Amino acid sequence: MKEIGIGLLGAGTVGRGLIEILETEGERIASRTGVRPVLRRVADRSFQKKPVLSAYAPTASIDEVIDDPSVELVVELMGGLDPAGTAILKALRAGKSVVTANKALIAARSAEIFEAIAEGRKKNPATTIGFEAAVGGALPLVRNMRLIWSAGGMQRMVGILNGTCNFIITRMQDDGMEYAEALKLAQQKGFAEADPSFDVSGKDAAQKLAILSMLAFDVSVRDSDIVVEGIESFHRVDHELARKMGRVIRLLAIARRVDDRLLLRVHPAMIPANHLLADVRDEFNALFIEERYAGPSLIVGRGAGALPTAAAVLSDLVAIGSGSANRWVGDLQPLKSLEDARYRFYFRFRTVDRPGVLARIAGVLAEHDISIATMHQEEGREPVDVVIVTHEASESAVRSAVSKIDGGEIILAPTVVIRMEDNPDASL
Amino acid sequence: MKEIGIGLLGAGTVGRGLIEILETEGERIASRTGVRPVLRRVADRSFQKKPVLSAYAPTASIDEVIDDPSVELVVELMGGLDPAGTAILKALRAGKSVVTANKALIAARSAEIFEAIAEGRKKNPATTIGFEAAVGGALPLVRNMRLIWSAGGMQRMVGILNGTCNFIITRMQDDGMEYAEALKLAQQKGFAEADPSFDVSGKDAAQKLAILSMLAFDVSVRDSDIVVEGIESFHRVDHELARKMGRVIRLLAIARRVDDRLLLRVHPAMIPANHLLADVRDEFNALFIEERYAGPSLIVGRGAGALPTAAAVLSDLVAIGSGSANRWVGDLQPLKSLEDARYRFYFRFRTVDRPGVLARIAGVLAEHDISIATMHQEEGREPVDVVIVTHEASESAVRSAVSKIDGGEIILAPTVVIRMEDNPDASL
Repeated sequence: MKEIGIGLLGAGTVGRGLIEILETEGERIASRTGVRPVLRRVADRSFQKKPVLSAYAPTASIDEVIDDPSVELVVELMGGLDPAGTAILKALRAGKSVVTANKALIAARSAEIFEAIAEGRKKNPATTIGFEAAVGGALPLVRNMRLIWSAGGMQRMVGILNGTCNFIITRMQDDGMEYAEALKLAQQKGFAEADPSFDVSGKDAAQKLAILSMLAFDVSVRDSDIVVEGIESFHRVDHELARKMGRVIRLLAIARRVDDRLLLRVHPAMIPANHLLADVRDEFNALFIEERYAGPSLIVGRGAGALPTAAAVLSDLVAIGSGSANRWVGDLQPLKSLEDARYRFYFRFRTVDRPGVLARIAGVLAEHDISIATMHQEEGREPVDVVIVTHEASESAVRSAVSKIDGGEIILAPTVVIRMEDNPDASL
Repeated sequence: MKEIGIGLLGAGTVGRGLIEILETEGERIASRTGVRPVLRRVADRSFQKKPVLSAYAPTASIDEVIDDPSVELVVELMGGLDPAGTAILKALRAGKSVVTANKALIAARSAEIFEAIAEGRKKNPATTIGFEAAVGGALPLVRNMRLIWSAGGMQRMVGILNGTCNFIITRMQDDGMEYAEALKLAQQKGFAEADPSFDVSGKDAAQKLAILSMLAFDVSVRDSDIVVEGIESFHRVDHELARKMGRVIRLLAIARRVDDRLLLRVHPAMIPANHLLADVRDEFNALFIEERYAGPSLIVGRGAGALPTAAAVLSDLVAIGSGSANRWVGDLQPLKSLEDARYRFYFRFRTVDRPGVLARIAGVLAEHDISIATMHQEEGREPVDVVIVTHEASESAVRSAVSKIDGGEIILAPTVVIRMEDNPDASL
């Protein structure tokens, strides 16, 4: 039996979830895995208010925990870029392995982190980092990227990577709520922050996509490589219109190999209602992948929450403790991203009820070489919704055309633009 | 870079799939994982007819490959209990790790295999076995049982683990085929063997369930611990009746913790049409799990086929080569199985059209304490189908009642019995 001494930085909900699992299942973990993770020290700013910590020599000092010789592995669950980043780098350089759920840090500072690991390995060759919990909570995504899809034949990843957005979207879809109402419910249930902007803007999903793309394609991804659109722009009526087309709306994070380039996108998309991802509801996360050898696969589960995230942290503790962690070899290549791409688009123009409106919209679309597949306008009072689905058109042409149309006087609200994601795989 | 010398036993479709991946992606595998698997020797009975093998010093002799000092790891892809079993045990005892896709062997002889590993570790402490490919092909199930769900809090597993059965069932459901026709199509497409009995009887799924249960619950499972029913008994009309109830039929492999006992079953079941497993079609496999900490999760993918299975074999080569394989510590406990369980049942009685039939059926059910929830009989000519859905009743009572009813003169064909599996989890 191998004991591994743990120092925990940050005893919030996830940290206390981890303590709960270690206290409840310590024996079973040891007998199943041959590793006994033993929590030795905890650093937490308000440790005095958390009696559960008293068994673990609590302190407010991060350094005290990292420097403690009984701590072999540091679990960072503070979140945020600093002091978490400083702490992680210090621990790694000291030859102590790190486990973290901090996706912002992994996405933003992976180069520094890998350098710190290299330095730490001079003191302790086993130094490594685990961040299974940073993407998709309890879904086994990080580890599987190299342990299962090891041949590197990833063709496409389509993920539902933000539980806040998926909860809001599915409440709008299933319960006919408007955005603000669904957001409020998400906040009440603890699925959304008081300031939800990081989630609903799509930025959280984009960070996760950057990490998955790094692992799948061996590239380093900058923020600017990913086109990101959030979920604030569309309304309940767009869900109704999607349903009439046999589709549902989801916020998708997509990475696709196109020749020698990568297309990276986070945006709302209409997908066929019979697609497996259409059944991923509420706060659940999912990743659909297509790999050249393994074929199409889907993984669904809880992407957040104290215990699921703590379970993912535990899986890293066991992997590192048993010497079975990923090695993170291989240099990352700079990403060649695909700037522009072609899609079928859904537009909903909210217009005045006046002669010439349709001619104006159709004219601008034609100028931009955007061909209309279907057009629909309900009879009714102003404002009038004109719904158009296009044939394949380029994103840049669409941006330019919509900007021109929205700049005119006939438009009463920003035009809703949603990509159609079709289903090239009949079975999934 | 760490080279690992591979000896391959059996160059059938999976073996040649592995050769294809190694030849095509060798460089990428090495740079992604730090491990370069190098195929050194191949044993195959008809190696002379397979020119692709000529680069790998082919032979018909299994022992020659195992004994070759350049072979550090043996990949067994012959299938069957022997000579595969003898070969695996010999390699392990010699301190050579083994990777196999042979579920029959793992299910039947795990105790001997673990003893051979223990013996091999005296010569080479790294000796281990990988069998990711034995269950669910390219789905990451075996590895994740201990690396992700490491706390051992598995409550329930519900799997679609046999692609042959799922293909037949979904063709019956979606295309209105009868069993024989769907089976023939499966055979034409290579999804069913000429003799399909091992698959359609549910025995293949039961072996996979035994392996997953060993990993999830740390128990040794005997064949007799699993109640197994196949897919040969029900007809197209049962799919139609299921649809009317908002359900679909799937062959499910189920393991559930009930107090200190385990319920292990393979049988056709009617599940809600909005369950994610209902969207798993054709030859795809899936495993839905509920773990105390990670929560509910679903994994879907290709459970068979040359390249998906070879990809799973490769994942084991990389894991073992990089020292990150599962350790397989922990003694297995004898399983305490749940012999009897309660379900809602669907019965379709094919009867003569004669007074007293219903009274007879209802009478026998009442004698066995089986309470009727709904009963339905279409008007029509003989034979008449009487469809009954029960309230919860015990399996043993149902077996006894159906046997009594089928023994009488009013029944024209064996009664179709399908369990109802309800969906305790609203989201999945």
